[in-house]
Amino acid sequence: MTRKIDIFDTTLRDGEQSPGASMNTDEKLVIARELLRMNVDVIEAGFPVSSPGDFESVRRISELAGYDATVCALTRAVDKDIVCAADALEFAKRPRIHTGIGVSKSHIYDKLRIDEDTAVERAVHAVELAKSYVDDVQFYAEDAGRSDYDFLVRIIQAVVDAGATVVNIPDTTGYSLPDEFGRRIKYLCDNVKGIEDVTVAVHCHNDLGMATALALAGVRCGARQIECTINGLGERAGNTSMEEVVMAIRMHGEELDAHTDVNAKEFVKASRLVSSITGMMVQANKAIVGANAFAHSSGIHQDGVLKKRDTYEIIDPADVGAGQSQIVLTARSGHAALKHRLEDLGYEFDDAKLDELYEAFLNLADKKKEVYDEDLESLVNERDREADALYKLDRLQISCGFPLKPTATVTLVDPEGEHVTVCEWGTGPVDAAFKAIDKVIRRNVDLTEYSVTSVTRGIDALGEVTVRIKDEEGGMYIGRGADGDIIVSSGKAYLNALNRMLEDNKR
Amino acid sequence: MTRKIDIFDTTLRDGEQSPGASMNTDEKLVIARELLRMNVDVIEAGFPVSSPGDFESVRRISELAGYDATVCALTRAVDKDIVCAADALEFAKRPRIHTGIGVSKSHIYDKLRIDEDTAVERAVHAVELAKSYVDDVQFYAEDAGRSDYDFLVRIIQAVVDAGATVVNIPDTTGYSLPDEFGRRIKYLCDNVKGIEDVTVAVHCHNDLGMATALALAGVRCGARQIECTINGLGERAGNTSMEEVVMAIRMHGEELDAHTDVNAKEFVKASRLVSSITGMMVQANKAIVGANAFAHSSGIHQDGVLKKRDTYEIIDPADVGAGQSQIVLTARSGHAALKHRLEDLGYEFDDAKLDELYEAFLNLADKKKEVYDEDLESLVNERDREADALYKLDRLQISCGFPLKPTATVTLVDPEGEHVTVCEWGTGPVDAAFKAIDKVIRRNVDLTEYSVTSVTRGIDALGEVTVRIKDEEGGMYIGRGADGDIIVSSGKAYLNALNRMLEDNKR
Repeated sequence: MTRKIDIFDTTLRDGEQSPGASMNTDEKLVIARELLRMNVDVIEAGFPVSSPGDFESVRRISELAGYDATVCALTRAVDKDIVCAADALEFAKRPRIHTGIGVSKSHIYDKLRIDEDTAVERAVHAVELAKSYVDDVQFYAEDAGRSDYDFLVRIIQAVVDAGATVVNIPDTTGYSLPDEFGRRIKYLCDNVKGIEDVTVAVHCHNDLGMATALALAGVRCGARQIECTINGLGERAGNTSMEEVVMAIRMHGEELDAHTDVNAKEFVKASRLVSSITGMMVQANKAIVGANAFAHSSGIHQDGVLKKRDTYEIIDPADVGAGQSQIVLTARSGHAALKHRLEDLGYEFDDAKLDELYEAFLNLADKKKEVYDEDLESLVNERDREADALYKLDRLQISCGFPLKPTATVTLVDPEGEHVTVCEWGTGPVDAAFKAIDKVIRRNVDLTEYSVTSVTRGIDALGEVTVRIKDEEGGMYIGRGADGDIIVSSGKAYLNALNRMLEDNKR
Repeated sequence: MTRKIDIFDTTLRDGEQSPGASMNTDEKLVIARELLRMNVDVIEAGFPVSSPGDFESVRRISELAGYDATVCALTRAVDKDIVCAADALEFAKRPRIHTGIGVSKSHIYDKLRIDEDTAVERAVHAVELAKSYVDDVQFYAEDAGRSDYDFLVRIIQAVVDAGATVVNIPDTTGYSLPDEFGRRIKYLCDNVKGIEDVTVAVHCHNDLGMATALALAGVRCGARQIECTINGLGERAGNTSMEEVVMAIRMHGEELDAHTDVNAKEFVKASRLVSSITGMMVQANKAIVGANAFAHSSGIHQDGVLKKRDTYEIIDPADVGAGQSQIVLTARSGHAALKHRLEDLGYEFDDAKLDELYEAFLNLADKKKEVYDEDLESLVNERDREADALYKLDRLQISCGFPLKPTATVTLVDPEGEHVTVCEWGTGPVDAAFKAIDKVIRRNVDLTEYSVTSVTRGIDALGEVTVRIKDEEGGMYIGRGADGDIIVSSGKAYLNALNRMLEDNKR
């Protein structure tokens, strides 16, 4: 029997730190339900002290998870963070507090402006305080990848003695080489007394494209927990991808003396879900979950050398849920069928909300022959976005083409309930629509990204638009919109981003 | 002084094997010029026997490269391939023939249906034949990652004795672990006589997300050439990313005893160029060249722990050409300025073509205040696409919005020069436009991907649309279109994909 490696998902915490990828509580709950279906061991649900939204997310996910997964909340080695995390985890069946402090010279002296003794003291105090609330306390040694070996042993020894159950060794900057990182884990395992009774965790970043290899080097050298995210989402170049590291362990379990309990069949679905909710697209040549991950070139340019599929492919695409049929509903599907399918997808609604959704669904099914899971997800997400909007889109009328002058006529409902109609022309219909919206919501923003993806196959697919805007203070806001008409999707997405910015400015 | 590691770029050969990413000769020349500016050591320009287009590309790139880079052509261990490659390389100042054969049991017995002795004989014969044309002969041991250690030593010894100057050890399936792959390279270096006089190369795939780590494990164990692609483009999950492996070597040169001569400042530009030409998007959390590679979350959700930028970031974004200003031209820019800028971007045109482009540029500059490099690239690519189209888009008129019934009126010019006008309605304006085009070009295709990106910042940016279609035989075709109006871009992209399919069917 190989060692069981715990999969600690931090899509909802470190993943959410991707610029522009912030999620609200409802969106986080949808992902948390998927993580439970995937059978991950630990869900890092948020950083409660950072915002009321994060607090609420940790609390709601705690209730959701029950005994199925440990729910973890992040803190700094600061009393109020820990008290707040304990509070957010109040209803968790398996709560874990994740506290820690910088351990590299740069973090201790330059960032925290303390000395090593003080760092150790604070670490021990934080673990002891956390321990007074929950049994399961994880300590992170921030920037451990660049720390002094012996100081790392010293601080880890101190927190293990103080009762930490998990010690997390992050390569915070993502610049280590796998061998080097592995040596560090091994040194720790060889030199900390009692380390065999705690779980050593690794948390790696992808700045040099090696987050997966780094995590595996850690596992080979003694780590028993991997911190990772769906699609490798995360700050900068992201974190270790759950799908990559789980499949690598599956392929090389014996050599690594490791296995996980994750249900890999959910990978493609989870990838799509996270991508749709955060607006962070997955490139075609992404390992495991990219559109081309199992695709060989064909048709156009047949290559004599590349003929026999099984000579080149070892993972069966079905093992990660790729290429499965997703047709679910049509205009003939009833209320119960929709409800059932939405529940399968992880959504739960009261009857009133379901009635509204059913109407929207029929509307869509009327236009499209086949309604896929992705269409339903877009539909639900779109309605959630509209529900709390300050400004709502009432009408949008476009005339454009070539050679024509693209023109948009837009009616918005403002926060006072007034209908405001404006028109504008532009270089294209999207430009015209955005300029018209700008005429009503007078804010100086910079559009830094605009992208559209059809969420399902076929020409009549729902188009999902993602926009990112930057305000004058450099704040970044993402907006999404989904509609059968991509100009309408675009208008909705832009309005969604502006609404988020306005909400944020109100605080 | 550390070892010089040769960077062997195979974007134009293995990269092009990404489903749907095929490029024509002009597109390949644009990328080849960029590779020369990047100062790569070897450009793998194509697989000449596979198609007349590949042959032509190798020939033209050979002329272009001069003494600045070795130009390499792929062959199987088959006489006609080698003769054809030698022919394509006729004008190269530094020609290299890259020949090889499968070396794993699965490749020898199941795919080639020969035995090990025959494989060695064919390998030696191929190297000797290639050697009769060029001095520089590279041998690839296909599927070496799964081969028997001692047979690998035997066949490599034989080709080294036959005069191979480079031996390439690919992990064809991309499923190795770095340590395991490194051990294989070391075993080879320890056991092949005369290996110190040849260059050992590694060629790794990203199926488990570890292509960069695999290549570095090879370098650590003796390899002196890395095969890689821009953006990690390539079959399935792609190849080693040039930008990742070069930056990792730069960060860890001493430990790896390695350096490269690549000009990293071109990375972001090269990434964008390859992405624009192939339509293969790069995800935001891609290492080094992703939009977020150096971005920390800010504004929305400030995280107390993550404050001090230099504590978390080691590579200076400017070192890889990120975040540089790209404003170049305005409506006031003259003919000479445009010519100069296009040359900088790697394009060369005769005067007539330049006049046409200048007109198109003025048209664009009229609509947009600032014309960026990306806009120019789109402009040039768009005109190239239109030039050889069977069906051309003459007019496109759209009326859509909410609540409206999206309607498209399209006029196409057919191959006989006739103007055909049709109209259709659909779920959205793109759907309506595509359906109208379908009414003229009656082919049964399946739209498998539709995406839009604005190629530059700002609301008035050019929108570039990429579509992928699949025909009834499973052939996949990519189409691209760029225009200020994304519905027009969409129509152009769809027509481009259909034109490519029709061209291909004519052959």
